[in-house]
Amino acid sequence: MIAEIIAVGSEMLTPFRQDTNSLYLTRQLNDLGVIVAFKTIVGDNFDHLVGVARNAIQRSDIIVFTGGLGPTEDDLTRECVAAALEVELKRDHDIVTAMYKRFAERRMSMPPNNAKQADVIEGAVVLPNPRGTAPGQYLETEVDGSTRTIILLPGPPHELEALWQGECLPRLREQLPPAAIATAVLKTAMLGESAADVRTAPIYKKYPNIETTVLAGQGQVEFHLRTTAATKEEAQAAVDKLAGELEDELDDVVFSTGGESLEEIVGYYLQMRNLKLAVAESCTGGMVAERITSVPGSSRFFLGGAVVYSNELKTLFADVPPLMIQAHGAVSKEVALALADNIREICNADIGLGITGIAGPTGGTEEKPVGLVYIAVTDGTRHEVVQRRLPGDRERVRRWASQQALDLVRRILM
Amino acid sequence: MIAEIIAVGSEMLTPFRQDTNSLYLTRQLNDLGVIVAFKTIVGDNFDHLVGVARNAIQRSDIIVFTGGLGPTEDDLTRECVAAALEVELKRDHDIVTAMYKRFAERRMSMPPNNAKQADVIEGAVVLPNPRGTAPGQYLETEVDGSTRTIILLPGPPHELEALWQGECLPRLREQLPPAAIATAVLKTAMLGESAADVRTAPIYKKYPNIETTVLAGQGQVEFHLRTTAATKEEAQAAVDKLAGELEDELDDVVFSTGGESLEEIVGYYLQMRNLKLAVAESCTGGMVAERITSVPGSSRFFLGGAVVYSNELKTLFADVPPLMIQAHGAVSKEVALALADNIREICNADIGLGITGIAGPTGGTEEKPVGLVYIAVTDGTRHEVVQRRLPGDRERVRRWASQQALDLVRRILM
Repeated sequence: MIAEIIAVGSEMLTPFRQDTNSLYLTRQLNDLGVIVAFKTIVGDNFDHLVGVARNAIQRSDIIVFTGGLGPTEDDLTRECVAAALEVELKRDHDIVTAMYKRFAERRMSMPPNNAKQADVIEGAVVLPNPRGTAPGQYLETEVDGSTRTIILLPGPPHELEALWQGECLPRLREQLPPAAIATAVLKTAMLGESAADVRTAPIYKKYPNIETTVLAGQGQVEFHLRTTAATKEEAQAAVDKLAGELEDELDDVVFSTGGESLEEIVGYYLQMRNLKLAVAESCTGGMVAERITSVPGSSRFFLGGAVVYSNELKTLFADVPPLMIQAHGAVSKEVALALADNIREICNADIGLGITGIAGPTGGTEEKPVGLVYIAVTDGTRHEVVQRRLPGDRERVRRWASQQALDLVRRILM
Repeated sequence: MIAEIIAVGSEMLTPFRQDTNSLYLTRQLNDLGVIVAFKTIVGDNFDHLVGVARNAIQRSDIIVFTGGLGPTEDDLTRECVAAALEVELKRDHDIVTAMYKRFAERRMSMPPNNAKQADVIEGAVVLPNPRGTAPGQYLETEVDGSTRTIILLPGPPHELEALWQGECLPRLREQLPPAAIATAVLKTAMLGESAADVRTAPIYKKYPNIETTVLAGQGQVEFHLRTTAATKEEAQAAVDKLAGELEDELDDVVFSTGGESLEEIVGYYLQMRNLKLAVAESCTGGMVAERITSVPGSSRFFLGGAVVYSNELKTLFADVPPLMIQAHGAVSKEVALALADNIREICNADIGLGITGIAGPTGGTEEKPVGLVYIAVTDGTRHEVVQRRLPGDRERVRRWASQQALDLVRRILM
């Protein structure tokens, strides 16, 4: 049973925009036990779209079209799918009436081309759109002896998702064999991609029936596990077993087994222990504070802090002695520790975090190259300080430094 | 002359990963005057890939495959394209020798399956890969009387881009008629999407030969113009004329005509006038500082500031009187102005910026709802303060508030 997703719209064939609905639809289809085998993006062009629809009907069991259901001349999905299936489009007068009513309620007159949205492919069920004017369509049909399910959905994500949940999922669940699928996710911080592979591949390769996807980036490596089995319980037991083995191997590098982000986990630990955090950031320029405050309710565990980008501000807001900066340099273990200690004390926080480094592209020296970062954390008693030489460009150095900083806070709370 | 981009790899058919190379390739092809008509994503499956290649050969003049050129069994692009063209694959022994040498230089022995990367489609030119082991391939061929250009490129972006620039561009330039294409871009801040449309559509619709793409999001609306003409000069004159008319209409809402980001423009203005900025952020939690420090060299115009998330820190770092907070609330015009004024003075900066608001999802009241934000800026003489009620979720409110803040700094510098 394979599916194909076809995104319709010339804007997705420019250098500016991408189809993103297919990520949502892929997850939804996978959860039904259906594999996505093809994704196609095609413009608002009659011949191109008919050709794409014909190919899809030949090769895929479930075909989901997104976009091209609006009222303009460019909106061709209905016509093209009908043409590919060699069936008629029929105008549904109940839908036209409902649209007239909808416009009338808003004291607007309906532009006549809107009626096009009421054109229904022969044999299709109309899926009412609770969030827009363009209804979806759902069609089960036989093509050369095979059953094909063809679904037309509007392009705007909130309309598409509402129609998928409300109209498509129930129909597909009824139609498809029950899927016994289980998933698990492990997220790790500050584990190198190749180290992750060396340590985990020998484990997950023992489980060829579990699909393991390793996603790496920005100081984070994630393991997404997924399997099918005879029953849901059996599938869950299988992924849990592998997740457990991976966790045993990776130990405290794993920060989340429930999908949470690192900043959510840090917030969770702080809140559990009723502790408050304050930060003093130099090279990350506010990125750590920004990430922490992206968590709703972060005022319960985060006081704030200082972005001490200039040396004067390191002294002004975090009491770093100018002589210390002179002696060791602004990018030094000593300054990182002073930032952590002093910001904690000044803000009357429980945990203090200090970050200083050289994000580049300029400012590096032979002794202190671009990418050198010191990060310190303290709870008043213990002090942890980490020196890193992070590779990559400015954006990457800053992102990894913020990840290392959050991970250090997590570790002092463990 | 139409092109098709085919991304090969099962990982791009999961909910986790997308093909992104096609955005780069689309821009490159457009710059050669070639329209991309189809994008296809297909997994590492022989039959699926052969079918996709066959369809592409039927319908597109230029076909670019990305990925599937590695040494593993999953890497099938070479074989499948040869099968679709019904030609042979031939092992190129010079390439095999070069690969052995490359491994030997690193004192490694070459795994035998690597030799697969030396399999060349009959008639294809081998494109040496300066950044990896998998060479690309370039083939011009006749299919049913039409010329087809078929290009195979490796998936990793830095390898793909090097091969495109070094090997494909020169060949395509020679082969294609010279394209006289010109582009222009206008970026605006804090212009609503529908207001943008109402004001600009009547202008750009007068120029049907200029393709106008309007991109909106996060407090920014961008206009990307592009046209072809008999000569490069004529094309440039046409887009410049429309860009000029749009700029006249939008006036000072336009912050950039050279592609720069808002933070780059703010940095540019500050540096030109040799001024230093300091910020005090509450609801944005460091996002403004983070955006400003994302610009290389920002230490020349940015001192830093405070993330005054708690009320105590508003007083501690920015001298906001507790009585003022009590009387007007932390989210008030008065507090925003005090933050801007005091952070400027305390940090010895030229420009001070203050932000306070309710990002949500909780913390709103009837009088002060979620999304209410006050932003103030001062140069010591003038004061500007803006009240906004920003719609959307926490992330959107914070992002728009940071955009509004940067735009206010830009405006006081104009």
